[in-house]
Amino acid sequence: MHKSADSAGVDFSREQLASQAAAVLARLRATQPRVHCITNSVAQNFTANALLALGAVPSMTLSGEEIGAFVSRSNALLVNLGTFDRERREATAIAIDAAAQSGLPWVLDPVFVDRAERRCAYAHDLMALAPHAVRLNAAEFTALSGDAPSRAAVASYARERGTVIGLTGASDLIADGARMASVANGHPLMARVTAMGCAASSIVAACLAVEPDAHVATSSAMLIVGVAGEMAADDAKGPGSFAVAILDALYTIDTQTLAARARII
Amino acid sequence: MHKSADSAGVDFSREQLASQAAAVLARLRATQPRVHCITNSVAQNFTANALLALGAVPSMTLSGEEIGAFVSRSNALLVNLGTFDRERREATAIAIDAAAQSGLPWVLDPVFVDRAERRCAYAHDLMALAPHAVRLNAAEFTALSGDAPSRAAVASYARERGTVIGLTGASDLIADGARMASVANGHPLMARVTAMGCAASSIVAACLAVEPDAHVATSSAMLIVGVAGEMAADDAKGPGSFAVAILDALYTIDTQTLAARARII
Amino acid sequence: MHKSADSAGVDFSREQLASQAAAVLARLRATQPRVHCITNSVAQNFTANALLALGAVPSMTLSGEEIGAFVSRSNALLVNLGTFDRERREATAIAIDAAAQSGLPWVLDPVFVDRAERRCAYAHDLMALAPHAVRLNAAEFTALSGDAPSRAAVASYARERGTVIGLTGASDLIADGARMASVANGHPLMARVTAMGCAASSIVAACLAVEPDAHVATSSAMLIVGVAGEMAADDAKGPGSFAVAILDALYTIDTQTLAARARII
Repeated sequence: MHKSADSAGVDFSREQLASQAAAVLARLRATQPRVHCITNSVAQNFTANALLALGAVPSMTLSGEEIGAFVSRSNALLVNLGTFDRERREATAIAIDAAAQSGLPWVLDPVFVDRAERRCAYAHDLMALAPHAVRLNAAEFTALSGDAPSRAAVASYARERGTVIGLTGASDLIADGARMASVANGHPLMARVTAMGCAASSIVAACLAVEPDAHVATSSAMLIVGVAGEMAADDAKGPGSFAVAILDALYTIDTQTLAARARII
Repeated sequence: MHKSADSAGVDFSREQLASQAAAVLARLRATQPRVHCITNSVAQNFTANALLALGAVPSMTLSGEEIGAFVSRSNALLVNLGTFDRERREATAIAIDAAAQSGLPWVLDPVFVDRAERRCAYAHDLMALAPHAVRLNAAEFTALSGDAPSRAAVASYARERGTVIGLTGASDLIADGARMASVANGHPLMARVTAMGCAASSIVAACLAVEPDAHVATSSAMLIVGVAGEMAADDAKGPGSFAVAILDALYTIDTQTLAARARII
Repeated sequence: MHKSADSAGVDFSREQLASQAAAVLARLRATQPRVHCITNSVAQNFTANALLALGAVPSMTLSGEEIGAFVSRSNALLVNLGTFDRERREATAIAIDAAAQSGLPWVLDPVFVDRAERRCAYAHDLMALAPHAVRLNAAEFTALSGDAPSRAAVASYARERGTVIGLTGASDLIADGARMASVANGHPLMARVTAMGCAASSIVAACLAVEPDAHVATSSAMLIVGVAGEMAADDAKGPGSFAVAILDALYTIDTQTLAARARII
């Protein structure tokens, strides 16, 4: 994997990232994968709408009595920690087990592990179950890994845990220990819409459903979300219209837009 | 009931459906019925907003300790199966009992019964409690009835169960065993917004609150939702702006628009 | 405190209210307070987006195992009664205790206490824990206080309970027993969007996080929300676009707009 001409320290040019994402997006729209989401009630509606806009089919039940059946009929699983009570932890255990038995990829989103010790301890337990990818922000990375979110620390944590880390912020890093990608797309209004990160994690899951290379899937998802955010900002007057416009953008985003807008850092 | 001039196999002309729906809509806006909704957390916000936009007053508590009081002060009840855990099944039993004691109509929406056996078994239990109407899609009809969703099968299942079946899809069928109506309105973007079917079911409940003939109430609800979907699509750039515009359309839809846009098949 | 020139029976002129609210808003945006919200699942998404649009940082977990940690790292707490089951009542008790220990202000929103006796009884229990402010509508005030919502009754109830009452409706009253403010801003479409009152209560909490005088904080929140509602109505075609536009308005509202639009009665 050669270094890109326009950035140091990353293994993918903007053209490579755009091309990979376009291929993943085309497969996603052609196959309409089912993504089962264990997520918090704040995020459920926006997450479902983001998946539907992109072309995936969400389901969201949290009942331990049926979640195994739902997961085994899905193509990928999202586990978002905004959901912490005992009943939901039991459902999560069943869901991850069902995903493992069916060979499905799953994504961990360790929301707010920087805010409560027990939540962070639970995230450590889930890391031991080997998620295919983890999407998180800088504060969550620091709480989970114990390190400041430098490129070296992200690569090291990904390598040590044998997973893909998708660290989002003003720019995004995607590392699997061997490879590092960056995505410089996005917009500050994304931080003013609740559940934007949760929705991004669900899109990682949707991409994993159609792309076996978890690094390619995660970096494609990050690029799609970042470019959609920039498309949305073109029309938005504030976070309300931005949240609407990013759903429209996930519906209309295409190969040409990805190629024209992709940026790395 | 004479056959309409512009369609075979249905008992209502487009003019009849539009006229019925306009009368139901006028009563709904004049009386502002209370609709208690047992629905899943993905759908709650959009369902409440759809009811408010149309002129009804939603409530949504799921607590067994108070749901009886809420239902007995309402004018109709929606039971949506997106809600499956034990606590909510207990609340559902209390709510249906309270509706029966108060003589309130109730609607069953057997969401995703095609995805998990236990959910389907629970839907069968609820069918035995005689909902006034059932709104569902083709996959859910097949799972529930054991038959492919032909006109004959829908009519037969409605007759056998003594209820109104509102089957939604590219076009909708509304059957009570004696009568069959069709609604050809709607738009493909409706399938790209989560909880659109759940919201439609809540509008069936709102119409039942003001119209004792459950077949008229259900076909009116289907027509109102389908026409609102077409109005929304006129302005939408994708599923985000479509979801916003359909709420505006439910607020502004009127007799003239229903008459001009109603279509049957 | 002198009577305003343009209204009888209130202690704040429109200029005073606008000036206070502008100062509170500036502090809120500068400090980005964390507001922990115990609220119902219908309201969670819109409430979080309203807080983010204004410049605050919401969190919403309801798990008893971690809510104490979340609250103690927050700057204010909202307790909304749309959440009634046993688990959530336990979480509420922990949260209010954590707020008291950390010296944090908290707001009570006694949603729908007029609909179920047990909910009203629970609201009385919470009133005994001395919320810094209570935001409610006329029906809820009557159920809670046993009195019709006259200015005298609102002032009397606030004085007796040692709290600030923010009574919202076609116009709003804000009383702490010693002082009375009115806000005449707002728009009828606010009643057609679910969780608008819940979001307003969360904004009271956000203002309390940056303003120790609870009467000033509550009247500032009421003015900000009312003016944002009028800004939103300028562009809205119905309740769908109104809900989007009020989030944009909370993001863009400024000192000049508050000064130009503030009205009292």
